Amino acid sequence: MYLENINGPEDVKKLSEDELNLLAAEMRKALLTRASKHGGHFGPNFGMVEATIALHYVFESPKDKIVFDVSPQTYPHKMLTGRKDAYLYEEHYDDVSGYSNPEESEHDHFVIGHTSTSVSLACGLAKGRNLTGAKGNVIAVIGDGSLSGGEALEGLDYAAEIDGNLVIVVNDNDMSIAENHGGLYSNLKLLRETDGKAECNLFKAMGLDYVYVGKGNDIKSLIDAFTSVKDSDKPVVVHINTQKGKGYAPAEADKESWHYSGPFDIETGKPLFNMDAEDYSSVTAAYLLDKMKKDKSVVAITAATPTVMGFAKDKREEAGKQFVDVGIAEETAAALASGIVVNGGKPVWGVYSTFIQRAYDQISQDICINNNPVTIVNFCGSVYGMNDVTHLGLYDIPMMSNIPNLVYLAPTTKEEYLAMLDWSIDQTEHPVAIKLPGGNMVSDGKKITKDFSKLNTYEVTDKGSKVAIIGLGTFYKLGEDVAKLINEKAGIKATVINPYYITGVDEKLLDELKNEHDIVITIEDGILDGGFGEKIARFYGDSDVKTLNFGLKKTFPDRYVVDDIIKENHLTDTQIVDDIMKLL
Amino acid sequence: MYLENINGPEDVKKLSEDELNLLAAEMRKALLTRASKHGGHFGPNFGMVEATIALHYVFESPKDKIVFDVSPQTYPHKMLTGRKDAYLYEEHYDDVSGYSNPEESEHDHFVIGHTSTSVSLACGLAKGRNLTGAKGNVIAVIGDGSLSGGEALEGLDYAAEIDGNLVIVVNDNDMSIAENHGGLYSNLKLLRETDGKAECNLFKAMGLDYVYVGKGNDIKSLIDAFTSVKDSDKPVVVHINTQKGKGYAPAEADKESWHYSGPFDIETGKPLFNMDAEDYSSVTAAYLLDKMKKDKSVVAITAATPTVMGFAKDKREEAGKQFVDVGIAEETAAALASGIVVNGGKPVWGVYSTFIQRAYDQISQDICINNNPVTIVNFCGSVYGMNDVTHLGLYDIPMMSNIPNLVYLAPTTKEEYLAMLDWSIDQTEHPVAIKLPGGNMVSDGKKITKDFSKLNTYEVTDKGSKVAIIGLGTFYKLGEDVAKLINEKAGIKATVINPYYITGVDEKLLDELKNEHDIVITIEDGILDGGFGEKIARFYGDSDVKTLNFGLKKTFPDRYVVDDIIKENHLTDTQIVDDIMKLL
Repeated sequence: MYLENINGPEDVKKLSEDELNLLAAEMRKALLTRASKHGGHFGPNFGMVEATIALHYVFESPKDKIVFDVSPQTYPHKMLTGRKDAYLYEEHYDDVSGYSNPEESEHDHFVIGHTSTSVSLACGLAKGRNLTGAKGNVIAVIGDGSLSGGEALEGLDYAAEIDGNLVIVVNDNDMSIAENHGGLYSNLKLLRETDGKAECNLFKAMGLDYVYVGKGNDIKSLIDAFTSVKDSDKPVVVHINTQKGKGYAPAEADKESWHYSGPFDIETGKPLFNMDAEDYSSVTAAYLLDKMKKDKSVVAITAATPTVMGFAKDKREEAGKQFVDVGIAEETAAALASGIVVNGGKPVWGVYSTFIQRAYDQISQDICINNNPVTIVNFCGSVYGMNDVTHLGLYDIPMMSNIPNLVYLAPTTKEEYLAMLDWSIDQTEHPVAIKLPGGNMVSDGKKITKDFSKLNTYEVTDKGSKVAIIGLGTFYKLGEDVAKLINEKAGIKATVINPYYITGVDEKLLDELKNEHDIVITIEDGILDGGFGEKIARFYGDSDVKTLNFGLKKTFPDRYVVDDIIKENHLTDTQIVDDIMKLL
Repeated sequence: MYLENINGPEDVKKLSEDELNLLAAEMRKALLTRASKHGGHFGPNFGMVEATIALHYVFESPKDKIVFDVSPQTYPHKMLTGRKDAYLYEEHYDDVSGYSNPEESEHDHFVIGHTSTSVSLACGLAKGRNLTGAKGNVIAVIGDGSLSGGEALEGLDYAAEIDGNLVIVVNDNDMSIAENHGGLYSNLKLLRETDGKAECNLFKAMGLDYVYVGKGNDIKSLIDAFTSVKDSDKPVVVHINTQKGKGYAPAEADKESWHYSGPFDIETGKPLFNMDAEDYSSVTAAYLLDKMKKDKSVVAITAATPTVMGFAKDKREEAGKQFVDVGIAEETAAALASGIVVNGGKPVWGVYSTFIQRAYDQISQDICINNNPVTIVNFCGSVYGMNDVTHLGLYDIPMMSNIPNLVYLAPTTKEEYLAMLDWSIDQTEHPVAIKLPGGNMVSDGKKITKDFSKLNTYEVTDKGSKVAIIGLGTFYKLGEDVAKLINEKAGIKATVINPYYITGVDEKLLDELKNEHDIVITIEDGILDGGFGEKIARFYGDSDVKTLNFGLKKTFPDRYVVDDIIKENHLTDTQIVDDIMKLL
């Protein structure tokens, strides 16, 4: 039992080679047990166990600083840096976040969840060290899948300019979240096949020194390699060939499915909870596959997260050339979509809300200035989405809705979504983005007859007076609840409005509301600053209508409990009605 | 006289080799004459004359589609595609934009001004072609300086996945705007020195075929190379070695200064207008150089635009290791700054408003979630800044001010700016961005005593009643003018407020205003949607105070006349006072 006695890297250094191998086995067992009960990122950690042991054996963290890219790779690192309990004991599983976190340990240097960042951040650490005359190694760890991202490639290029030590560990498990896409992977393959000896070498072409470790899950080989570059006086890449999911047969066999896992049965690898219910992912894939068959110019695009659009491997095969995975490369996804439009194609880019911000400039320049009719579907942009601080979906309204030319739509049901998607793909006038609602998918079977080409036309779904409630997307249903409650509490029959459009104000409808309404409230699923409600407040600024905007405060909450954050932001029907009644 | 008779690529194809060389000389002369009178991008065009002739000689535009990166390279292309008059006759100089523009010609396919986009966009054209079963070559042209950008490197990596024809012309003049930075440039040098024969080859490492043309300004060599790759059935890079500024001795000798030029005297190369007046660029460099001497941990960062921060070559040499140019790589600039902070440095990143959007995710994730005290100085974020649709500075308020943790400041004078910069560099609590005002720099000599660490504290600079005017940044002065005029017209002494902070609301001060004010107006230099004024409107939404927000409409204006756009958006003092008086 070694892991129980590891309180920091100094305890790793005390072990013999045999003991280190036993430690690795214990770590892998703890990872497996925790994952089976708790869920989390799986494959990336299993491959990095030996390399993490070797890093802490050779380097002197925290004086030497290790920056992990896509911090799911950090679980083994956390186990070796004073946080073993969170992997050994079920009652402590939630003591740590799923990402690197300086608040947890002096061995973590950044809160980072988006990928492709480690090399550029490490360049900063090295530059800071040089400016202040400090000493120490700086080590960036990056997975092969993350190499395709713009920030990673920029960082690799810039790294050659760093004076003094910089070690870049490329953890090559020959996989991104799904399979890798991009030409550089043929070079990684060539390097693996030639034991790193091929003359044509991406890293050398970027001006960097290079060391290859074929046995990337062999502690001895890794220790030797890291020792050889320790205190190197210039930037060097250590390319290690690891096995994703190593040590758990189901994960070795199906690396994509086991990138991330919910709780599962260790014996069989079967998930403990049924995930097959219809949701916006499955609905999207079903619609698109049907559409693709009718129209060969329709193409779905992902940047390395195909399953959020419902495109698991079988569906990708069904779509054939009409499904494109650009790899982790959101900038290229956006530009590609714009180019496809210019040559007659109909692209649909499905993307997580938290990742769309990686392509702000491309959405603005490559797509919207050109007014090219790309369709973007934005998943998990909701308080009911991912709750890690690095993966929040609370900011896409201010980010997207203030870009000129873009039509940003907020459906409230499955039926509205599919109608919008259908309209967007075939129209040729506007770039369109669709913000999927959070929470459980609502399907009411209603036939949608609305003509979405009449921009910024809201709809009164229930006509009343005195109070008007504009419930956007996710929170349209909450708007209905508020209307019901205020009728019960104050006998007021409120008007309820589904605005559909995030990017524009229905001036005619809002003007008409002035006649019989004193108060207009908005409810939106995201931060209020720069959002939808403020546009309504501006519109009514010079009138007698009073406005109340409900949404989230501009903060970065971390691992929040949904019910708590809802209450803290006055987003229950009771709180909203109370706030309205104060104004009446 | 050949150029006069070129009405399209078909006329280029009719010429003999000797005639093409004469055409090149005429084009260069026309470029020189126009640049001397009109100003514009200089070096990039001079180097691309022969390659552009060869492209149009070999390929069949517009069936074959050429996408120019950093479209300043497009002037020769415009000359050969029906727009020669705009280069031959002074009265037609303004008939064309400085960038590629589909509205001008069927030979242009995108409105593009930001760099590093052409490969990804061309991948889209090729994919669209494949989906629709169309035919034709797709050619991306990209300069060596632009290769360091994330979108370009992502695109190069993805390009290998394209089925069928794709030609990537790398225009290597061994220069970015200033000198190149990054390890990949050592590989380009190696390739130039080995006549393209070195085994270690960045492009091959990206999975692409490769052709080298040493004589990149020789039409015959270029025609041969382009002919060899025409109708290629897979992606191929044609690496051409050109000379920036070729054909004009002063530009050949000082490539950096001649990347872009105002009007100048052809004989001497001397500018016709004196550009030496003090401005925010020179003030920034002077302050930082002084600060660097006192504090060795201070470092200035640029992404390939050092002069906007005032750092011409002599100043960069003076700063030494305390000045970093990461090349065209804004994502890395942001991440680098964050890393520098973590290791004890004090980074100041100077960036154009239009380019900061290339690093949205990095500002949010790498800097702001980590709450690292980076200083960002935002230049030309103003209606008085650049007026090309691709380079507008109208969107940084919605983009930046809604990111949690960031403190976004708006100085109104040189003195306020320097006080903010001084505070920001030495504080350790917040990431800070400073939005420089547009128009002529105002310097009033006032000593600034404000403590900027007291966040979101606005200042009443003139106390009145009834009407309060909050003038942000550039438009603080307009606020004073409005106050003066409304006093003259309506006898109202208005309150004038300098808010300083874009990212937060001074709730206490705004609450106090309620007592003696009926109307609060805001004026901001940027689009209103998602901006500063809407936050004020939201604050007062539930009160009796009426609000009016002045700023720009959410559009992409192109080559506007400042006075016109100011009037169209009700931004003259007279218009604002009229609007207020309607409400009184």
